[in-house]
Amino acid sequence: MPHDAGFTIENVPLPEKDLIRRIRQLSSTRRSGHIPLGIGLGIGLGIGDDAAILRVPKGHELLVTTDFSLENIHFRRDWHPPESVGHRCLARGLSDVAAMGGQPFAAFLSLALPADLPQRWVEGFLRGLLDLADRHGVTLAGGDTAQSPSQSRRPASEAKILADIVVLGSAPSGKAVRRSGASPGDRIYVTGALGASALALERLYAAPKLKLSPKRFPGHFYPQPRLAAGLALRGLATAMIDLSDGLSTDLDHLCEASGVIAEIAAESIPLAHDTTLEQALHGGEDYELLFTAPATRKVPRSIGGVPVTFIGQIIAKQGMKRGKSCIQISELGQPSRELVPRGWEHFTNPRRP
Amino acid sequence: MPHDAGFTIENVPLPEKDLIRRIRQLSSTRRSGHIPLGIGLGIGLGIGDDAAILRVPKGHELLVTTDFSLENIHFRRDWHPPESVGHRCLARGLSDVAAMGGQPFAAFLSLALPADLPQRWVEGFLRGLLDLADRHGVTLAGGDTAQSPSQSRRPASEAKILADIVVLGSAPSGKAVRRSGASPGDRIYVTGALGASALALERLYAAPKLKLSPKRFPGHFYPQPRLAAGLALRGLATAMIDLSDGLSTDLDHLCEASGVIAEIAAESIPLAHDTTLEQALHGGEDYELLFTAPATRKVPRSIGGVPVTFIGQIIAKQGMKRGKSCIQISELGQPSRELVPRGWEHFTNPRRP
Repeated sequence: MPHDAGFTIENVPLPEKDLIRRIRQLSSTRRSGHIPLGIGLGIGLGIGDDAAILRVPKGHELLVTTDFSLENIHFRRDWHPPESVGHRCLARGLSDVAAMGGQPFAAFLSLALPADLPQRWVEGFLRGLLDLADRHGVTLAGGDTAQSPSQSRRPASEAKILADIVVLGSAPSGKAVRRSGASPGDRIYVTGALGASALALERLYAAPKLKLSPKRFPGHFYPQPRLAAGLALRGLATAMIDLSDGLSTDLDHLCEASGVIAEIAAESIPLAHDTTLEQALHGGEDYELLFTAPATRKVPRSIGGVPVTFIGQIIAKQGMKRGKSCIQISELGQPSRELVPRGWEHFTNPRRP
Repeated sequence: MPHDAGFTIENVPLPEKDLIRRIRQLSSTRRSGHIPLGIGLGIGLGIGDDAAILRVPKGHELLVTTDFSLENIHFRRDWHPPESVGHRCLARGLSDVAAMGGQPFAAFLSLALPADLPQRWVEGFLRGLLDLADRHGVTLAGGDTAQSPSQSRRPASEAKILADIVVLGSAPSGKAVRRSGASPGDRIYVTGALGASALALERLYAAPKLKLSPKRFPGHFYPQPRLAAGLALRGLATAMIDLSDGLSTDLDHLCEASGVIAEIAAESIPLAHDTTLEQALHGGEDYELLFTAPATRKVPRSIGGVPVTFIGQIIAKQGMKRGKSCIQISELGQPSRELVPRGWEHFTNPRRP
């Protein structure tokens, strides 16, 4: 069978077997003491068989989410250190599980790498990913590896790293929080502060050659999935979603799923340091939680040190919907107006790095 | 926030929301009547929340496998019709579950598409994938979509389709068949016939402009994962693996995991029509099952119409291993020799399309 002449072995960072071995090594070293026994979960079998064998605790349902992290779509190698790329890759999936009120327990990583990628990049990526996994008791339980189909003659900017992360979590049967449970009268809340990731992105676009310090922009480079808040809100939140695409878009998703109309107050939206209302409304990747709860229920002002802010209310069912949007926004001294979702969508508005 | 100028909306096959809606539509139409109630599995929630909610049947463990299907690595758009690409994408994951003796129940698809991909390609891909899913009672329960980071000015051969498939299955606790259970004295068996996929690939490489008829080469274009055989072998097979990388490499994996040495007889290996021993030994993507069973147990000659062939024996533990390989091959009239694995590995030997 003829060989593909596109690659040379010299360029290869690590043969596949070695890469898998390295991932296994790194994750098993860390796994000791981190198996999430607390909630009765155990990993039957790690990386290396045809499929991983996992146990879901009795009386729990399984939560599954998958997220791409593609070079030049979700990150740029000249902007994001490998540790940040690995962290953000897993954070996206953990945040989805948080938004269901679930407890994550395992992750699977599919990783395609260009032949000429330095080994230290791979190590940094895995370090970022596994550090975050450790913090939340998540085991890297398997995945797939491939060489990405880049040609060595292509400019460096086109050589591509492709990652797809699967996160598995669980929640007691029937207790996972969906997007679809909001009713008129429910109040709308958000955790943390918004816009920090959009701010960092704007700075990066404005001066692409300049390196931003991850320490100064942790919200963009190392967002913290709100798992403790998500768990605490189970039984209290009627609907929940994570802010990955931006408040305007994600609130729209929640309203569509619940068949309701929301009104939010501009002045109540918690802005991250230095950010504008626009960034907070339409910037994505904040990975905070947006949720609704009955007005009669007491919602804590903070959960595990993360502030919780009351930003609006569900005002009606969608039967009454007339405009293009199911969100109204009020600003002091102005009549309330329609808020059209302008968060990011890959296929129509690819403005991310 | 500045927009990425790399894409124009005119080029876009479908906005992300529409693509997700289309996938949901196609999969929910099909799902009716196909929910695998037979084994007590139900899908709590489909595509559209932060995570899918699934139930694993009582007393079962969860099986998870992920597999990339990357353009120009795992398939070529000029060689493989979209239906074949979709079919093969899912077949890889189903075959992994088959090799564990498991029953698949759900799949998750992460799909990144270049902006200029015709809509009919996407529809064909989904048709191929969902047809196979239907046949095995598998629900497409979620996934992720993105626009792949190709530039419209790049030659068509470089525009890339990236798919990652996750397949979830289950098996009664402790009953999944691993790679690691083979012992000296066990016999080695293989389902079906080998080499058909390698034969098709050789023809494609020899005349890249020529279209091969998928009907003449179903083993390559539409491989059938051996799920019924895998289930039937649970409780009988001591170790099992699917033939994705080639008999020599996959038997090596099994021997390594079990810590044993195998001997196979060249003349007993079932060759697919027109194939050579070389193709059968080292060609990948046959998706047949390779397994071991105690010599004292009766193994059926065929399972659901798929032949099962006795090809060799586990001859020793690896403590006695001296050479580079843990496989010996005997050929009539010749002394038995070492068989060095030459199946495909992405990073060292990227000879696939």
